Amino acid sequence: MQSNILLINCPDESGLVFKVTSILYNKYDLNIIRNGEFVERNFNHFFMRTEFSGAFDREELLKDLYEVLPEGVELKLTDKRKKSIVLLATKEHHCLSDLLIRHAFNELNANILCVISNYNVLEELTIKFDVPFHHISHEGVSREAHEAAVLQTVQQYDPEFVVLAKYMRILSGDFVSHFANRIVNIHHSFLPAFVGANPYAQAYERGVKIIGATAHFVNNDLDQGPIIAQSVIPVDHTHSAREMTQAGRDVEKNVLAKSLKLVLNEQVFVYRNRTIIFE
Amino acid sequence: MQSNILLINCPDESGLVFKVTSILYNKYDLNIIRNGEFVERNFNHFFMRTEFSGAFDREELLKDLYEVLPEGVELKLTDKRKKSIVLLATKEHHCLSDLLIRHAFNELNANILCVISNYNVLEELTIKFDVPFHHISHEGVSREAHEAAVLQTVQQYDPEFVVLAKYMRILSGDFVSHFANRIVNIHHSFLPAFVGANPYAQAYERGVKIIGATAHFVNNDLDQGPIIAQSVIPVDHTHSAREMTQAGRDVEKNVLAKSLKLVLNEQVFVYRNRTIIFE
Amino acid sequence: MQSNILLINCPDESGLVFKVTSILYNKYDLNIIRNGEFVERNFNHFFMRTEFSGAFDREELLKDLYEVLPEGVELKLTDKRKKSIVLLATKEHHCLSDLLIRHAFNELNANILCVISNYNVLEELTIKFDVPFHHISHEGVSREAHEAAVLQTVQQYDPEFVVLAKYMRILSGDFVSHFANRIVNIHHSFLPAFVGANPYAQAYERGVKIIGATAHFVNNDLDQGPIIAQSVIPVDHTHSAREMTQAGRDVEKNVLAKSLKLVLNEQVFVYRNRTIIFE
Amino acid sequence: MQSNILLINCPDESGLVFKVTSILYNKYDLNIIRNGEFVERNFNHFFMRTEFSGAFDREELLKDLYEVLPEGVELKLTDKRKKSIVLLATKEHHCLSDLLIRHAFNELNANILCVISNYNVLEELTIKFDVPFHHISHEGVSREAHEAAVLQTVQQYDPEFVVLAKYMRILSGDFVSHFANRIVNIHHSFLPAFVGANPYAQAYERGVKIIGATAHFVNNDLDQGPIIAQSVIPVDHTHSAREMTQAGRDVEKNVLAKSLKLVLNEQVFVYRNRTIIFE
Repeated sequence: MQSNILLINCPDESGLVFKVTSILYNKYDLNIIRNGEFVERNFNHFFMRTEFSGAFDREELLKDLYEVLPEGVELKLTDKRKKSIVLLATKEHHCLSDLLIRHAFNELNANILCVISNYNVLEELTIKFDVPFHHISHEGVSREAHEAAVLQTVQQYDPEFVVLAKYMRILSGDFVSHFANRIVNIHHSFLPAFVGANPYAQAYERGVKIIGATAHFVNNDLDQGPIIAQSVIPVDHTHSAREMTQAGRDVEKNVLAKSLKLVLNEQVFVYRNRTIIFE
Repeated sequence: MQSNILLINCPDESGLVFKVTSILYNKYDLNIIRNGEFVERNFNHFFMRTEFSGAFDREELLKDLYEVLPEGVELKLTDKRKKSIVLLATKEHHCLSDLLIRHAFNELNANILCVISNYNVLEELTIKFDVPFHHISHEGVSREAHEAAVLQTVQQYDPEFVVLAKYMRILSGDFVSHFANRIVNIHHSFLPAFVGANPYAQAYERGVKIIGATAHFVNNDLDQGPIIAQSVIPVDHTHSAREMTQAGRDVEKNVLAKSLKLVLNEQVFVYRNRTIIFE
Repeated sequence: MQSNILLINCPDESGLVFKVTSILYNKYDLNIIRNGEFVERNFNHFFMRTEFSGAFDREELLKDLYEVLPEGVELKLTDKRKKSIVLLATKEHHCLSDLLIRHAFNELNANILCVISNYNVLEELTIKFDVPFHHISHEGVSREAHEAAVLQTVQQYDPEFVVLAKYMRILSGDFVSHFANRIVNIHHSFLPAFVGANPYAQAYERGVKIIGATAHFVNNDLDQGPIIAQSVIPVDHTHSAREMTQAGRDVEKNVLAKSLKLVLNEQVFVYRNRTIIFE
Repeated sequence: MQSNILLINCPDESGLVFKVTSILYNKYDLNIIRNGEFVERNFNHFFMRTEFSGAFDREELLKDLYEVLPEGVELKLTDKRKKSIVLLATKEHHCLSDLLIRHAFNELNANILCVISNYNVLEELTIKFDVPFHHISHEGVSREAHEAAVLQTVQQYDPEFVVLAKYMRILSGDFVSHFANRIVNIHHSFLPAFVGANPYAQAYERGVKIIGATAHFVNNDLDQGPIIAQSVIPVDHTHSAREMTQAGRDVEKNVLAKSLKLVLNEQVFVYRNRTIIFE
């Protein structure tokens, strides 16, 4: 039987778990498979994620929940089916390769609708895996015109999430606003260290002993969106900036894959530029 | 106001969260601060840990809970006050030092009632921190007589937990049976690799590239009890067995401290030789 | 200009670095790019790895080195060109995928001559990347006959290294003897914990808090060969044995890739069942 | 016999290892125990660290080395004896405790000459371990006057290294200039992320999933000196800023201890604001 996922976030108050479970269990006789709650103490905000199975009327259930829950509550009632995603890439293959392989072997809870790139170097790889590839070159067109073309193509596919798999161009606030908390980026540094371009060169220059990568939702501020996952590896003085870049790639692809697993399984809440994650 | 902690484990069935929260919230109007549940799917066993505040009659609350919960349920109603512990050590100081320091600065949720050792080398350190030290030598007495003397001393203090802070003698099943799931040991290897004596020499011999330490509850089988926490560090061919031992000490003291934090805060369930931990 | 690599191991004695560098620098005027030495103190054995460039007569240089170095010395004079390898796999794709991708993008210092498998499930993947695939089924033939067929195919390709990319069949001592310290295996556990079959089920059963993977050379004793690289990830009670398996896959492919980088770049010595690695 | 340590750094050129070893081995018949070299390729700078034993005339050996080595060479000829250090602290005990304990058990290759603090809260701890404690309050005096008083006290002890064990005051360029590359600081963040005050609050605010600590030499720019060691631990949304601070303390004390081990054993070169470390 299909698992359903209920995501609730609202101002905290007494008895919320009781109120939700009394509707799910007592009124609808649904079978709760997994339950997680968290209260963010700085702002007294309540988060709950419940997986359950059983028959119910969607509209009625939501109505009943809205009735007992505080004003301002956000409810999302979804399920475990595969989400649809579009990938944007530039020239580096490692994140794209990893996602295409996982997709091919049914290990990604998503359908990759297409890959869009401003270069064509990844076309051969992409079509090997029977995924449509769109080369939208940025050469000879304005930044705005290029982004508009990309946006139009993305919108044709109408994906639930957009994944920036080493897409090396900055997206405008306008683009981002079409997909609030639905664009996932992999940043090749341990944010907030080394924002911006060439983070490995910066890391080398600074002589750090650990480098990392950060997967985050994209918002209007470059590299400032809510962090979903981070990971690191040790480096030392023997690593040139180029070797740090190479060493960082495995971290990047692993952390992007990990973050997508969380996002695609509806385990992630965004609240005040931070993520609340139910693992 | 004092936080209370309710630990429940029982065979899983529908509506358990609802039933518990309806008593805590609906009947007693208690304020639930933190709530965690987990269902072990192999054996369909339910675990729940709830922190709550408010006034209640202990006996009545337990009676009400027993009424709605399945047969075979285990309930523990406790609180966040400091637990009492006794430390056993031999000659190595690093775990003992670490716990004495944390104790002195009020960072351990425990009162160290005393330190017992089969040598006197750690006496000077212990009494610096105004903790009683008992030197119970194993020389010239039988293993049984020595253990009986240690047991007698421990029992005089009547601790809630016994911590083996690098106590290098094997405890008998009889000793262990007095403190079921209440003895925490630090084993100087990444169990189950290298059980028994001289794990670092074994690790060196095997040429491993990572060494670790394991904190676990002690049961009748040496080094086979439920694992609470583990941690590792990288090593390489340049480490002699002695250098591995030194490198391992920081890991040992950190992992012991981490496991005690979990145990003393009542975050750990033991079930079928595994631990369920609510972090 | 081509880099050369000189690998020396011999009983330690005074002045070895001087003797070697005096030949390379003083007599042949070769340019030393990188130099590493290590003395294993238990057996007083000396290891040296030197990268150098310049023109020289191979036979003469070796003769000169043998003259000044102690009896029993082992010399290997090689270079940085791509090594030839054959991959053996069974049904799981993750290690094979990773190596095929790295190969396709020229990131593996090796030519993959072919993939051999006892199943055909990985054929489609392999030929996507224009690598020959040999399906040698083990069904209906004896263990010996199957291995003989595999051996014959491997020998046709005459590879410098054989990589077991999740090849789930045990190789006989006879097979192994053809490729001493030239077969690299990825074992899906943190050896020496959980040798043998189903390590993740064993890890689940034991309730470990960290799982790992081990890349090692294969010798006659199953899972007992010299360890090249290990890596770990944390797990907890929420991971089923199946989820541990999935979580372990990323570790496996990363640690296999890391070990191959070391082996293919001639950075690894084997000595008394341990590895000495110059990074 | 006493081990000597020779540290060389100079512009790279051909034959440097040969030239050094020919003097040590060929001319002086010294026994080289351990040898490490590294060439920084961006600036073609050569680093060599050699441990050796045997009898020699210090002045003559240095003269011979200077003769064959390039202009601009820096030579340091030292040994493995304990270095003298002074510790500065403020109110937090964890790094100081850790160093005092290691010192008491002879695990730090240093004599702690004294502890200086701008508060007296750590006095009781310090004198437990028979180390002199100087309380130099910053209250009611100017920043300059306070620092001058601290400097005067440090200079009375004439230490080889000054260790800032959570000393929460900024040192002036003048102070630092007295101890170039001889002041080690522990910074409570994964530099260069979260420079300045309250890094854990910043880390919480940014919602990072990993926090870290950095040990570095102090130079004129706050938190910008050469990094010696870094380490990290995972955190998540359940950690408040205060809990991150607590979790970070174990990392801080471990990374400070690790960096001191490297510094006190003369394993660290500083070059262009980066460290070259021979492990």
